[in-house]
Amino acid sequence: MKLATLKTGGRDGTLVVVSRDLVTCQAVPKIAHTLQAALDDWDHAEPQLRKIYERLNAGTADKAESFIEEECHSPLPRAYQWCDGSAYINHVELVRKARNAEVPASFYSDPLMYQGGSDRFVGPCDPIAVLSEDWGVDLEAEVAVVTGDVPMGASVEEAAGAIRLVMLVNDVSLRNLIPNELAKGFGFYQSKPASAFSPVAVTPDELGEAWVDSKLHLPILVTLNDQPFGRPNAGEDMTFSFARLVAHAAMTRELGAGSIIGSGTVSNKQGGLHGSSIENGGVGYCCLAEVRMYETIEGGKPQTPFLSFGDTVRIEMVDAGGASIFGAIDQEVTRYHRK
Amino acid sequence: MKLATLKTGGRDGTLVVVSRDLVTCQAVPKIAHTLQAALDDWDHAEPQLRKIYERLNAGTADKAESFIEEECHSPLPRAYQWCDGSAYINHVELVRKARNAEVPASFYSDPLMYQGGSDRFVGPCDPIAVLSEDWGVDLEAEVAVVTGDVPMGASVEEAAGAIRLVMLVNDVSLRNLIPNELAKGFGFYQSKPASAFSPVAVTPDELGEAWVDSKLHLPILVTLNDQPFGRPNAGEDMTFSFARLVAHAAMTRELGAGSIIGSGTVSNKQGGLHGSSIENGGVGYCCLAEVRMYETIEGGKPQTPFLSFGDTVRIEMVDAGGASIFGAIDQEVTRYHRK
Repeated sequence: MKLATLKTGGRDGTLVVVSRDLVTCQAVPKIAHTLQAALDDWDHAEPQLRKIYERLNAGTADKAESFIEEECHSPLPRAYQWCDGSAYINHVELVRKARNAEVPASFYSDPLMYQGGSDRFVGPCDPIAVLSEDWGVDLEAEVAVVTGDVPMGASVEEAAGAIRLVMLVNDVSLRNLIPNELAKGFGFYQSKPASAFSPVAVTPDELGEAWVDSKLHLPILVTLNDQPFGRPNAGEDMTFSFARLVAHAAMTRELGAGSIIGSGTVSNKQGGLHGSSIENGGVGYCCLAEVRMYETIEGGKPQTPFLSFGDTVRIEMVDAGGASIFGAIDQEVTRYHRK
Repeated sequence: MKLATLKTGGRDGTLVVVSRDLVTCQAVPKIAHTLQAALDDWDHAEPQLRKIYERLNAGTADKAESFIEEECHSPLPRAYQWCDGSAYINHVELVRKARNAEVPASFYSDPLMYQGGSDRFVGPCDPIAVLSEDWGVDLEAEVAVVTGDVPMGASVEEAAGAIRLVMLVNDVSLRNLIPNELAKGFGFYQSKPASAFSPVAVTPDELGEAWVDSKLHLPILVTLNDQPFGRPNAGEDMTFSFARLVAHAAMTRELGAGSIIGSGTVSNKQGGLHGSSIENGGVGYCCLAEVRMYETIEGGKPQTPFLSFGDTVRIEMVDAGGASIFGAIDQEVTRYHRK
């Protein structure tokens, strides 16, 4: 099943069920006005939403409308929780290698995770609005899941069963603010502005054979200024599955329905250099920081700049037949202006 | 004006206006079902809520009921954002002094802040439920504010004007999980389980002369197992005002209405030792960690244990006449059981 949120209807938008081919959609006010409301009462809402989904796919829905990605907000325009793991250790290895540091052994058994801001996400086609290019604006292409309620101390198996939806994320990062912020010891805050999620969130069953043991085995496609930039496989080199990340998040507290847990930047190892660009025959990257680390390792300093005003980022994933699964995150970096 | 949320009515409870003396309250379904709904449309809701408040205080409200703190959830049972500053640098100085480290000069100009979990708070009289006493359970008595919408890059003055409500917090911390977690570099996560907030949230004007330049100049009263434990003045030694903390939070992103920003553990300097217990004539402490730091500085190691099952924590604040302003956070440490 595929779900999305149109921007109309207030801060939380309007929930719509979307056809598998992303061509039609239908609002479902009698079932749930918003995605959060559906998640709050999932056992009751889900079977009803699936009936609409089946009718949309069969072309028999009585209130189908055209589905337009640009009219979407993030599936949860705001959420009660957004936690981002760092499950692709290659990303961490590369960062450490660039400064000749070892990756602690515990990083392979104890997930890295930070608590992100969730009070205002931006829509998938909304700008990445910043006050200054000097902040070092970077993309981070990731996969994320949305959970139901999870009890404290949930097992990995229980956590797997609590995964309700899967989507893509651009976890925008302000690289030049990170060193000072992490040095303070309390983690990211100002260096992680509002994220954008894919127009469509899908139930795990929708992913078929690509969803194995709570990992999504498909390439995530990143385009930068209309040029292919990355296509690593999100199922490869993922040290911690989503179930493992959810269980980590729930170790000392219950998770409320609608919690979003991210994978961290997708990153494939590709041998000794921890990565290779698409033009050099590799699968490329999901963030500029990795290219810059590679350049630092090779040449002593980074060459590729961070994002500038006017730069565009597109993040998508297609199925075996080439059809877009989640719709596309498609953003341009702009200067922030107050509304 | 004073507002609270009763537990009845679903995940977000039921908004009530509470009389100044905390004796009566009234639900306001025609204005807003929940506190978040009121905050989402504050300019419209606030004047109507104030009319009810005036009638409650005058004893002329037509639907007044008894107000019972134990029936309250936290004012926002779940929120879209909970960020906690560390505005009382004495707390940081003490931690550093215990390990013979300097406080970086930047800490006096650049606030420390971490992003906390907000998907499920616990009620003010709900237990502090943990799976293990070995986690090192500690209280942290703090003040917090709730904001309206704040634009990115808001000035300190704009931030001051965006403060809608003030309340108290017990920001429970799992001290034995902190060293490993902070060493990973991504900040707190598992070491910060669900917080509890005071039964009542109040508008700043309600605090009268105690609210000066976005600081609350009253002692915060902490009782541990029915013994006085702390009464430091929340207006003293607060290096960063709430307006400053809100502006820090909004530097690179907009804040959504209903964002909660905390002060960090209230802590008064009281001279060279950075604190003194109530039994030694001081104002005491707002967390056990500070006592343990003091003991470490004095005797080489901590003596006071963290909280055990059955221990109780009470956090309150009274006005010049001795009347409770926010109601009391009153919690017992218990073993977590699944519902």
